[in-house]
Amino acid sequence: VPKASAAILLGDLCLVWSDLMLARSGLAPEALARAASGYGEMRAELMAGQYLDLLEQALGGRDLERALRVARYKSAKYTIERPLHLGGRLAGASPAVLDAYTGYGIPLGEAFQLRDDVLGVFGDPATTGKPAGDDLREGKRTALVAIALQSATPDQAALVRRRLGDPALDDAGVAELRAVIEQTGALAAVEALIDDRVTSALAALDTPVVAAPAREVLTALAAAATCRDV
Amino acid sequence: VPKASAAILLGDLCLVWSDLMLARSGLAPEALARAASGYGEMRAELMAGQYLDLLEQALGGRDLERALRVARYKSAKYTIERPLHLGGRLAGASPAVLDAYTGYGIPLGEAFQLRDDVLGVFGDPATTGKPAGDDLREGKRTALVAIALQSATPDQAALVRRRLGDPALDDAGVAELRAVIEQTGALAAVEALIDDRVTSALAALDTPVVAAPAREVLTALAAAATCRDV
Repeated sequence: VPKASAAILLGDLCLVWSDLMLARSGLAPEALARAASGYGEMRAELMAGQYLDLLEQALGGRDLERALRVARYKSAKYTIERPLHLGGRLAGASPAVLDAYTGYGIPLGEAFQLRDDVLGVFGDPATTGKPAGDDLREGKRTALVAIALQSATPDQAALVRRRLGDPALDDAGVAELRAVIEQTGALAAVEALIDDRVTSALAALDTPVVAAPAREVLTALAAAATCRDV
Repeated sequence: VPKASAAILLGDLCLVWSDLMLARSGLAPEALARAASGYGEMRAELMAGQYLDLLEQALGGRDLERALRVARYKSAKYTIERPLHLGGRLAGASPAVLDAYTGYGIPLGEAFQLRDDVLGVFGDPATTGKPAGDDLREGKRTALVAIALQSATPDQAALVRRRLGDPALDDAGVAELRAVIEQTGALAAVEALIDDRVTSALAALDTPVVAAPAREVLTALAAAATCRDV
């Protein structure tokens, strides 16, 4: 059996099994009906985000806004905002609570993806569990790379074009690319973006519609999802 | 953007959009809840059927039982039984009605696939809209081919092995393979299987739990799905 065909079917089967788990969860029909539309939208947004990501890689992106849009669809909405909406809708939360979750989830999700981008380049293999500079070898077009390319000298840009995405990139090559990302100010800029977004996310929780226990858990999640040491 | 990746995402998006259409159909939450489990099972069965089909092609199948099992999962359940169950469950049908739909849908769906197999080899391009002998050129391992291989002389089997799945198969090659399928009795055997299954399907409708208007429509569907002239 061709492996790619079997893999596609397995992916579809997992998608369908997750539907069955929700359908058979024992939740009330009314709760499931409230959640169904947002659940489907979450998945449609993910497909769109994956497509934007493919497009960005194909374009060899150096556009920060586009890189952040990919992060919004692939990570922010799918990983944080929409799951909170799902839980909220199942529990019958008011629109004001769902709005607060959006205000928290979108910036935190972007910060989570930006932290992942930083760890993919500068992360310690002992804590990330991935080889050092993995994203560099894979040639991922992240916000970090977009900012570095925008601020690079011609020599630095040529180095990035030559080595980024080289599967044979060794430790010395990783160190060279890391140096460009630091010297262009891209690392500092991304750290500032992360701080800014975490601040926005936490501010969105500062409303009486979010109950105190939820605020406590979500504050801890914001720290866990964006901290420097994985 | 790599075409295969975009195509996979588009397929997933269509799967998700179909969920959204059902979720937003305006049907009552209780009706949707009754239908959800069978709807998910239908899709899981289809993935299983597609996998069995891939496996059968890879094995170069000559086993009639396995070919019929593929037809059951890919066509009978997905095309007829499960859609009838979906409608039945949405309308609050009794288990006896759903059982009658199974008794009708499984054999009719197998007959539908067997008719498709015959048309794929012997169909008239003017009515099927496909080139003559399309399934032969594609090398499809259908029940028709399985029976032919089981009854073939060594010379006939060698011919089938040599030409089935040859993308360059011309009209003379199609005629040679058609002759083997007729001479081995495979065509007559498949026509008998179709008749047998249509008889079973119609017999399953002969119960008071299936209302007269439904019986009329389903009887017409059985004829339309299995008739010789598309």
